[in-house]
Amino acid sequence: MIVAMQERASEEQVQQVSMRLFSMGFEVHRSADNRQVVLGVVGEHQTVDLADIESLPGVQKVHSVGSNYKLVSREFRPEGTVITLKGLAIGADEVVVMAGPCSVESREQLFTVAEAVAQAGARCLRGGAFKPRTSPYSFQGLREPALKMLHEAGDRFGLLTVSEVMEISQIPVMLPYIDILQIGSRNMQNFDLLRALGKVRKPVLLKRGIAATIEELLLAAEYLMAGGNYELILCERGIRTFETSTRNTLDISAVPVVKKLSHLPIIVDPSHGTGSREKVAPMARAAVAAGADGLIIEVHDCPDKALSDGAQSLYPQQFSELMDELQPITAAIRRKLA
Amino acid sequence: MIVAMQERASEEQVQQVSMRLFSMGFEVHRSADNRQVVLGVVGEHQTVDLADIESLPGVQKVHSVGSNYKLVSREFRPEGTVITLKGLAIGADEVVVMAGPCSVESREQLFTVAEAVAQAGARCLRGGAFKPRTSPYSFQGLREPALKMLHEAGDRFGLLTVSEVMEISQIPVMLPYIDILQIGSRNMQNFDLLRALGKVRKPVLLKRGIAATIEELLLAAEYLMAGGNYELILCERGIRTFETSTRNTLDISAVPVVKKLSHLPIIVDPSHGTGSREKVAPMARAAVAAGADGLIIEVHDCPDKALSDGAQSLYPQQFSELMDELQPITAAIRRKLA
Amino acid sequence: MIVAMQERASEEQVQQVSMRLFSMGFEVHRSADNRQVVLGVVGEHQTVDLADIESLPGVQKVHSVGSNYKLVSREFRPEGTVITLKGLAIGADEVVVMAGPCSVESREQLFTVAEAVAQAGARCLRGGAFKPRTSPYSFQGLREPALKMLHEAGDRFGLLTVSEVMEISQIPVMLPYIDILQIGSRNMQNFDLLRALGKVRKPVLLKRGIAATIEELLLAAEYLMAGGNYELILCERGIRTFETSTRNTLDISAVPVVKKLSHLPIIVDPSHGTGSREKVAPMARAAVAAGADGLIIEVHDCPDKALSDGAQSLYPQQFSELMDELQPITAAIRRKLA
Amino acid sequence: MIVAMQERASEEQVQQVSMRLFSMGFEVHRSADNRQVVLGVVGEHQTVDLADIESLPGVQKVHSVGSNYKLVSREFRPEGTVITLKGLAIGADEVVVMAGPCSVESREQLFTVAEAVAQAGARCLRGGAFKPRTSPYSFQGLREPALKMLHEAGDRFGLLTVSEVMEISQIPVMLPYIDILQIGSRNMQNFDLLRALGKVRKPVLLKRGIAATIEELLLAAEYLMAGGNYELILCERGIRTFETSTRNTLDISAVPVVKKLSHLPIIVDPSHGTGSREKVAPMARAAVAAGADGLIIEVHDCPDKALSDGAQSLYPQQFSELMDELQPITAAIRRKLA
Repeated sequence: MIVAMQERASEEQVQQVSMRLFSMGFEVHRSADNRQVVLGVVGEHQTVDLADIESLPGVQKVHSVGSNYKLVSREFRPEGTVITLKGLAIGADEVVVMAGPCSVESREQLFTVAEAVAQAGARCLRGGAFKPRTSPYSFQGLREPALKMLHEAGDRFGLLTVSEVMEISQIPVMLPYIDILQIGSRNMQNFDLLRALGKVRKPVLLKRGIAATIEELLLAAEYLMAGGNYELILCERGIRTFETSTRNTLDISAVPVVKKLSHLPIIVDPSHGTGSREKVAPMARAAVAAGADGLIIEVHDCPDKALSDGAQSLYPQQFSELMDELQPITAAIRRKLA
Repeated sequence: MIVAMQERASEEQVQQVSMRLFSMGFEVHRSADNRQVVLGVVGEHQTVDLADIESLPGVQKVHSVGSNYKLVSREFRPEGTVITLKGLAIGADEVVVMAGPCSVESREQLFTVAEAVAQAGARCLRGGAFKPRTSPYSFQGLREPALKMLHEAGDRFGLLTVSEVMEISQIPVMLPYIDILQIGSRNMQNFDLLRALGKVRKPVLLKRGIAATIEELLLAAEYLMAGGNYELILCERGIRTFETSTRNTLDISAVPVVKKLSHLPIIVDPSHGTGSREKVAPMARAAVAAGADGLIIEVHDCPDKALSDGAQSLYPQQFSELMDELQPITAAIRRKLA
Repeated sequence: MIVAMQERASEEQVQQVSMRLFSMGFEVHRSADNRQVVLGVVGEHQTVDLADIESLPGVQKVHSVGSNYKLVSREFRPEGTVITLKGLAIGADEVVVMAGPCSVESREQLFTVAEAVAQAGARCLRGGAFKPRTSPYSFQGLREPALKMLHEAGDRFGLLTVSEVMEISQIPVMLPYIDILQIGSRNMQNFDLLRALGKVRKPVLLKRGIAATIEELLLAAEYLMAGGNYELILCERGIRTFETSTRNTLDISAVPVVKKLSHLPIIVDPSHGTGSREKVAPMARAAVAAGADGLIIEVHDCPDKALSDGAQSLYPQQFSELMDELQPITAAIRRKLA
Repeated sequence: MIVAMQERASEEQVQQVSMRLFSMGFEVHRSADNRQVVLGVVGEHQTVDLADIESLPGVQKVHSVGSNYKLVSREFRPEGTVITLKGLAIGADEVVVMAGPCSVESREQLFTVAEAVAQAGARCLRGGAFKPRTSPYSFQGLREPALKMLHEAGDRFGLLTVSEVMEISQIPVMLPYIDILQIGSRNMQNFDLLRALGKVRKPVLLKRGIAATIEELLLAAEYLMAGGNYELILCERGIRTFETSTRNTLDISAVPVVKKLSHLPIIVDPSHGTGSREKVAPMARAAVAAGADGLIIEVHDCPDKALSDGAQSLYPQQFSELMDELQPITAAIRRKLA
C-alpha cells in the first residue's frame, strides 16, 4: 500500500498517519520529494479498508499496490488451472461448449434438446431448475424433478450437467444430479452462498455480475478459493452500459484480461450477453477467437414456446451450424473443440 | 403494446404476427402509412416477454405502451402513500431522518450513537445485525443480539428501528425487534426475498441496486405490493457509473422521477452513495432540497475504529450540525423535519 | 410516432395534444382500451423533438416508431454498401486491414512500418498527421509533411491511406494525399465537420464516440449521407463503462447490431478499444469472427519510443503473426483477407 | 509515480525498468517486501504516458501518485478563486444564477426573457448564438446578430452575458459582446479550442463532457490555465449512465468533489442535466444545497414554441418561483443569492 500525503500536509499529520499504520501492524517507509511525502506501507492489507486510511487528515490518496487477490492470481499457478471431470478438461487446449434450454420445462423438451446439442458437439448440458423471475406470475422452474431429468439426459447423451444454485438450501438437493454448480450473476457477491460453495467438492461456474468489474469477479472467486474450492470456472455474460441496442454489453475483452491476471478458465455466455438469437452466433465466434475456454449457450427445440428467454435461444439447427463455424476458428488459434 | 413492422415486412409476415398475438389473447388493431405497418395491441402484456414478439420475422420493434407496473404507479394512489408507524409519518410533509452505525458492534457503541442521533433529531435508528462482507475474514455482524440491542436502544431513546434482512430465514428473527425491514441493494431483485416480505405486515425499505434503473426499482416494489405489502419506502443509494472519484454516483434526480411516477415515499442514503464522510452532508442537503421524504445516514461514535464503513460514517457532532442545516432547507420547500 | 396518454388524462388533454399534433402537420389516429388513450401519429417526425410532445399535459410517453434514419438503414440498400477504391472493396467478402503508426513521426519510421504492414497483408496505411493531445506539452503531429509522407509510402507499398481530419480547415490540405478521411471519436457529433465532409467525394471513416450509442453513430452517418456522401465506413473503437481494466470496453456486439440495422460497412479498432498491446490480437480476432468488415490497428517499429500511444501499438512481428491467425478465421466465416 | 513490479518479475526486469525510468530523467527508489519489488519514482511525470511504463516486461501496475494537475488544484490556491466581473463575484459567498433561452431566436423573445429573469434575480443572461444540431434541418442559430442582442439585453437589464463558443473562428466575433465564453460539453476536450481560449482575457465557463470524469474536467481546466487564463468556472451538466428516465444523470456529487480538489468555482446546469422542465427546480435546489457556486438555467417565454430544447425550459413564472425557493436554501448554508 502506498499512502500519498497532500502537498500541504503538516509534519504532524504525516506522523499521525504513520503511527496509525504502525499500530495496525504495518511497516512504514517514508520518502519525499519537494512536493509531497509518500509512505510506502508493507504488510498484509487485505483486511484493511483503504477508505479508512484515506479519510485520515492530510492523506491525499491511498494506492493498493499488489493485487488484492492471491489464490486466483496467475502468479499463484502460472501454468493455468485445468478442471478435469469425467474425461472432460476445462481450461486446457479444448474449447468446451455447454448448451441447453434456459429452463427445464419437460422431460420431452429436455431430451430433445440434449440429444441435439450432444450430436452437434456440446459436452455439457445446461438447464435451469430454479428460476428467479421478475414477475410473480411467471414460470418458477420445475425444481428437483428438473435436476433428475438433467442427470438422466446427461447420462443418456454423454453430457456433463450444469445448473444454477440460487440459495444455500438448494445445494444438497443439487449435488446428486449436477456436475457443475453455477452461481448466477445476481449472486456473484452473495457471500453466504460463496462461502457455502467454497466447501463443496464440485466445480463451480461463477458468472460475472452485470455491474461487477473484472477485479470484483476475481475477488469473488478468491472468496470461493479461500473457502477451499479450487475448481472454478469464470463466466463473462455482459455488463450494463448506456448502450440499449443489446440487453447487455458483452465484454469480450474480459477474456484476455482474465487470462493475464488469473489462472482460472473463463467461458462466455453470448445468450444472456446479447439477449437476441441473431447475435448469439457472431458473439460466440468472437469469444472463441478471443481465447475463451468455452461457451454456454441457450438452445431450445421450440424457442417460440419457451417459458423463459425464448428470444435468445438458438434453434437446434442454428446451434449445429454455429458448432461447424467454431471448428476452424479454434484451429486458427491452435485449439480444438472438446 | 405497439408492434412496428419492418418497412419491408411482407403481408404474410404481418398476418403471422397478428395471428400470434391474437392467439395469445390480444386484440390487434392495424394501421399503416406509406412506409410501414404498425399494430396496436390491446390486452394485458405484463406476462409476455416483449423480446419474444420482437424476434418474430418482419418485426422491427415492440414498444410497451403504458407502464409495466400498476400498484406502485402514481395513478393508483394520486395522493401519495403515507406510512404511519408509532406516531411517525413517512411520506407526509415531514422529512424523516434515520441514522445509526453501519453495524451494531456493541451495546455501548449502539447506545452512545442512538442517544446522540435522537438528541439531534433523528427518528429512526439504523444498524446492521447481519453483514455481508467481501472478505471471509471481516466482521460478519452480531446477529440476533444486535437486533435485541436495536430494539432496546429504540425504546430507550424513542426511535423506530430499521435493519437489513439478507435472507428469508432472518425474517422471523427480526420481526419482534425491528420496525422497518430493509432490503439491501444487492437483494433488490432477489425475488424469493421479495415474495417473502410481500407477506409481512411491517414496512419495508427497498434500496435501489447499483445497476438498477428506476423502472426496475419500481418493478421490484410492484412485486412486493403484488404480494400484499403496501407499506414500502424506496431508497436511492447510488449507481455505478464510469466516475471513480466517488464510490457510486448518487442519482438525486431519482427523487423527482419517483415522485412523478409513483405514490411511494423515497428517501436517500448519502453515506453509501458517496462513500466518504465529507460528502455526506452536502449530498444529504441536496437530497432534501430535491424533495426526498427522508434520509438514512451512517453515524458512528468512533468512525476510526468502526468495524465496517468507518470512512463514510459521520461523527455525532457532524450529524448534529447537518440536522441544523437541514431545518431551514425543509422550511424552504414548505416541509419540516419529523 | 405513438403518443401514450396518462391513464388519468382528461378528454380535454387528449384533444389538446391531438390538435397540437395536427397543427404540426401530422395525421392522428386515436385508439383506447379501458385503461388509456393511445394516439397513432402519422407523418415525418424527424424534425420534431419528442421531448416537446412528451412535456404536454396528460402525455405519459412518446414512442418513436420507425427508425430515425433512412439513408443509413439496411432497408434503404438491403444488399449492403461496397466501397471500391483503387481495386480494394470495403464491405464485400474481403476483410480489409488498415495498419500503421498512431502518429507519423518521421519518414523513416513511416516507411519502415508501411513496408512491414504491406508485407504482412495490410491494404491501407493509417497514420496521424494532426494529433489532439491532452497535454499542451505533447507532440502535436507533423501536419502537412506527414500527409505527403503517407501518400508516398502508400504509393511505394501499394497501400491506400487513411488519416484523421480534425477540423474543416484541414480538409483541402488532406484531399490530395489521403484516400479515406477519418472522423475521430471526439468529433462524431461535430456537425459542422460532418456537414463539410458530406460534400467531399472521398470515403469517410466515422468512429463511434466513447459515449455514443449505436443509434447515435447511425444518426451521425445519416447526417453525412444527407449531405451527399454515401461512401461511409463505420468504426467501433470502445465505449466508456465502469470497467477500468481496459481503457475502454470494446463493444464487439456493435458489429452484428450495425449489420442488421444498416447497409454500411463496419470495422473495428482494437488498439484504441483496449489500450494495451497484449489485448489487440485477441480482440482483433474476435472482431473478425463477429463479422467485422475490417480492422484498423496501430503498428510501430519501435513502440517504446513512439511519441503517442506506444503502449497499444503492435510490433511489426506481432502484426504479422496476427495476420496469419486472421486468415483461417476469415475462412471459417466464408470470407477472406483482402 | 509508483511502479509495482510483478511478484514473479526477475531481477533483470527490475533493472531494465529502473534504467528506463532513469534515462527518462527520473530518480528511482527501490523497496521490496517478501512478495514484490516496488519502485518509487520521483520527478515530473505529467508528460509521460503511464501505459508505456506499464507495458514494460515485469511491471504489474503503475500508480500516479500526486495529482496530474497543479494549477487547478486546491493546494495551488487554498482560499479559492473568486472571479469578479462588473460588480459580480463568482466563487464567493454569493450564489450566481445565469438564465435565458437555449437559443436566441428573436429580439423580442430575448428581451422578454431577459427582463423576466433579471426581475427574478438572475445576474447573467445565457443564450446560444451558434447551435450544434443533430439534424441538418434544424435551426442553426442566429449567429452574430444574436450576440449583439445578448449584449444589448444585458446592458438594458443589468445582466452579464454568457454564450457558447463552438470553434476558434467564433472567438473574435464574440469578444465584443459576451462577458463569459462557454465551452460546451462536446468541446471539453477540444484542445485546439482550449488552447485558443487560454489566451483570451475573459472568463471561461467549462462544461463537463457527458463521458468525462471529474479528473478529466480538471485536466481540461489545467490546459486552459496552463495557457494563461485563470478565470475559469466549471459546470456540471450530467453524465451518461445506464439510467434512461432522465436524459443524463446529473452528478451533484461533482460539487463537493470539485470543491475539495480544486479552487475553481463550480456551477450546475439542471436543464441539460435532466432534460425535462419538471425536474429542473428540484435539481436546481439540490445543486445549491450541495454547495454549487451558481446555476445556469434555461428559461423561455414560450417553451412550446422554442426552436430548441423547449421541453427543458422553464416558464418565466416557474423560474421566479424557483428563485424564491433558493433564497432560504442559500441562507441555510450561510450563503446568499448574488
